[in-house]
Amino acid sequence: AAGAKIIDGKALAESIRAKLRDEVTDLSENNGGFIPHLAIIQVGDREDSSLYVRQKQQAALKIGMKFTHHKLEATVSQAELLSVVHALNDDYRVHGILVQLPLPDGMDEKLVTEAIDYHKDVDGFHSLNIGLLAKRDHEPLFEPCTPKGCIELLRHAGVDLNGKKAVVVGRSNIVGMPLAHLLQGENATVTVCHSRTQNLEDIVRTADILVTAIGRPQMVKGSWLKPGVVIIDVGTNPIPDSTKKSGIRWVGDVDFESASQIASAITPVPGGVGPMTVTMLMYNTVLSAKRSLKGYRRPTQ
Amino acid sequence: AAGAKIIDGKALAESIRAKLRDEVTDLSENNGGFIPHLAIIQVGDREDSSLYVRQKQQAALKIGMKFTHHKLEATVSQAELLSVVHALNDDYRVHGILVQLPLPDGMDEKLVTEAIDYHKDVDGFHSLNIGLLAKRDHEPLFEPCTPKGCIELLRHAGVDLNGKKAVVVGRSNIVGMPLAHLLQGENATVTVCHSRTQNLEDIVRTADILVTAIGRPQMVKGSWLKPGVVIIDVGTNPIPDSTKKSGIRWVGDVDFESASQIASAITPVPGGVGPMTVTMLMYNTVLSAKRSLKGYRRPTQ
Ligand SMILES: NC(=O)C1=CN([C@@H]2O[C@H](COP(=O)(O)OP(=O)(O)OC[C@H]3O[C@@H](n4cnc5c(N)ncnc54)[C@H](OP(=O)(O)O)[C@@H]3O)[C@@H](O)[C@H]2O)C=CC1
Ligand SMILES: NC(=O)C1=CN([C@@H]2O[C@H](COP(=O)(O)OP(=O)(O)OC[C@H]3O[C@@H](n4cnc5c(N)ncnc54)[C@H](OP(=O)(O)O)[C@@H]3O)[C@@H](O)[C@H]2O)C=CC1
Repeated sequence: AAGAKIIDGKALAESIRAKLRDEVTDLSENNGGFIPHLAIIQVGDREDSSLYVRQKQQAALKIGMKFTHHKLEATVSQAELLSVVHALNDDYRVHGILVQLPLPDGMDEKLVTEAIDYHKDVDGFHSLNIGLLAKRDHEPLFEPCTPKGCIELLRHAGVDLNGKKAVVVGRSNIVGMPLAHLLQGENATVTVCHSRTQNLEDIVRTADILVTAIGRPQMVKGSWLKPGVVIIDVGTNPIPDSTKKSGIRWVGDVDFESASQIASAITPVPGGVGPMTVTMLMYNTVLSAKRSLKGYRRPTQ
Repeated sequence: AAGAKIIDGKALAESIRAKLRDEVTDLSENNGGFIPHLAIIQVGDREDSSLYVRQKQQAALKIGMKFTHHKLEATVSQAELLSVVHALNDDYRVHGILVQLPLPDGMDEKLVTEAIDYHKDVDGFHSLNIGLLAKRDHEPLFEPCTPKGCIELLRHAGVDLNGKKAVVVGRSNIVGMPLAHLLQGENATVTVCHSRTQNLEDIVRTADILVTAIGRPQMVKGSWLKPGVVIIDVGTNPIPDSTKKSGIRWVGDVDFESASQIASAITPVPGGVGPMTVTMLMYNTVLSAKRSLKGYRRPTQ
């Protein structure tokens, strides 16, 4: 077989970032030095969180945005954390606020997530934004970054979703659930699978479009697939690899080798969804900054 | 064939209302005459709206609740309507607020729906409640009434949803979408179909549980079904019937005669989902009243 077309997330992310950089330059030139500003709050210093914050910082700076990193001790009280959130909510110069999860044990992640002004909720995780995402004929202020990245990849690959059967494996609040709504918004017929799903293989085989956000290395095999399926593999899982200095390498939830023989198109891991997630965060922050210039406030509540 | 078991919504609704009546009596006795209070705002006098309001009023009064009907002229301004909503929000003696839809042309239904304090949103339509419904490990303050009624019917019929394949036809904000989330919350694997779905018949045939909320009289035929499927038919459609004084009768989205030969259980129309919807509204209002006694306020935003 000729094998699947590779959907290149890295290249698409780079081209979107280049456009955002131009946009930020224009915004600044036309508005007396105005700069979109992303603020990230990190509590404690988990290594993985620090890495993710650094990736976002690098992307923001490269695009020409302002980035502030609010690093709090792991021992900070929830009230202190909330007061930092509130100060950023009230600072009109800040356009996007993100609290890096997970928070230390004992902190209420829900409360902190909902405390962010939903006008600055560039992660798109606030329940009001999720509700607006779920409702037909409504629009959230921001679409969650990873799901939005998946839709951009499908669009870029020229995939027609209208009336097609999409299967999403995974129902998390940050990937599976919001993605199902975005796919449905494109008029796909969506099935959401999860760990309790019976006959997963048979359901996956009905998919014209398959999205995996499971966290199980190479679980989905080529033999599970309908020929010609388009695959977006969100999974990013470490597996041991003694040929690497780090001792690991990253693989998706899909067994790329067998799947790419059956699919018509597939995202690689790494280099597929990953680079799009950070890019969509930048996109949302620029969007928020542009709205702030127009004095935009959604009159809700 | 023996034919399907009939899931009797009228009987279940009556037994729940009887329990609510006892609960309201107890609440009042133990709290110095405290009475749960449902307030409905109606703008204009569409005949169908007046009928629905009357049904809710009768149910509320029979249960022993207080009911106020705020009837505004069709010519009222949106600002006046909003001021009525705000006054009810601020009145601590009111536990449930509902704006009867549709509103007259030119009024912003979204804005009005979101203006209701989500602590009193007994319809469960506020975007914050929908967002909390959509998120795993979160809970809305109120589940939308018709979807909640469907779940109660399935529970009452002893249907095991865990891991089962549920197909919901219809994706409206008030039925299909929230119902899909409730079914998924019970660990069903849910597919949502709609007017753009291709091969609808084949997808319906995969269902262990089928819910129709389409608005197309008797569209789904027995030949579309997997033997043993459980059917919840939300559709309530008038068709001409010269033997009736009114000239019409009500049928579901499912062709009851052929479907009841194949299904293991099915709701009738009328007498299935219909009576449950109003009952769940009463349930939500009593729930809100009980919370108010505890000084309950969800600390969001
Ligand atoms: N590239 C990127 O930018 C991002 C990548 N990711 C990656 O995506 C993957 C998923 O992340 P996330 O959504 O946060 O993960 P979660 O752990 O929150 O959710 C995993 C989902 O997969 C389901 N699941 C688990 N095991 C199985 C199974 N055997 N069969 C079917 N379903 C199963 C779970 O079901 P249940 O609900 O029943 O538990 C759950 O819904 C991870 O590999 C993560 O690293 C995540 C975010 C961004
Ligand atoms: N018993 C009760 O208490 C209640 C009963 N109802 C009844 O339920 C039914 C649905 O109500 P509601 O949800 O408000 O209706 P809506 O009109 O808002 O939604 C109908 C849904 O059905 C889909 N649909 C329409 N035609 C087809 C088709 N041919 N094939 C597949 N899908 C189709 C639509 O798709 P698309 O999104 O693409 O347009 C839409 O998602 C009605 O009969 C209504 O009277 C409603 C509420 C309460």
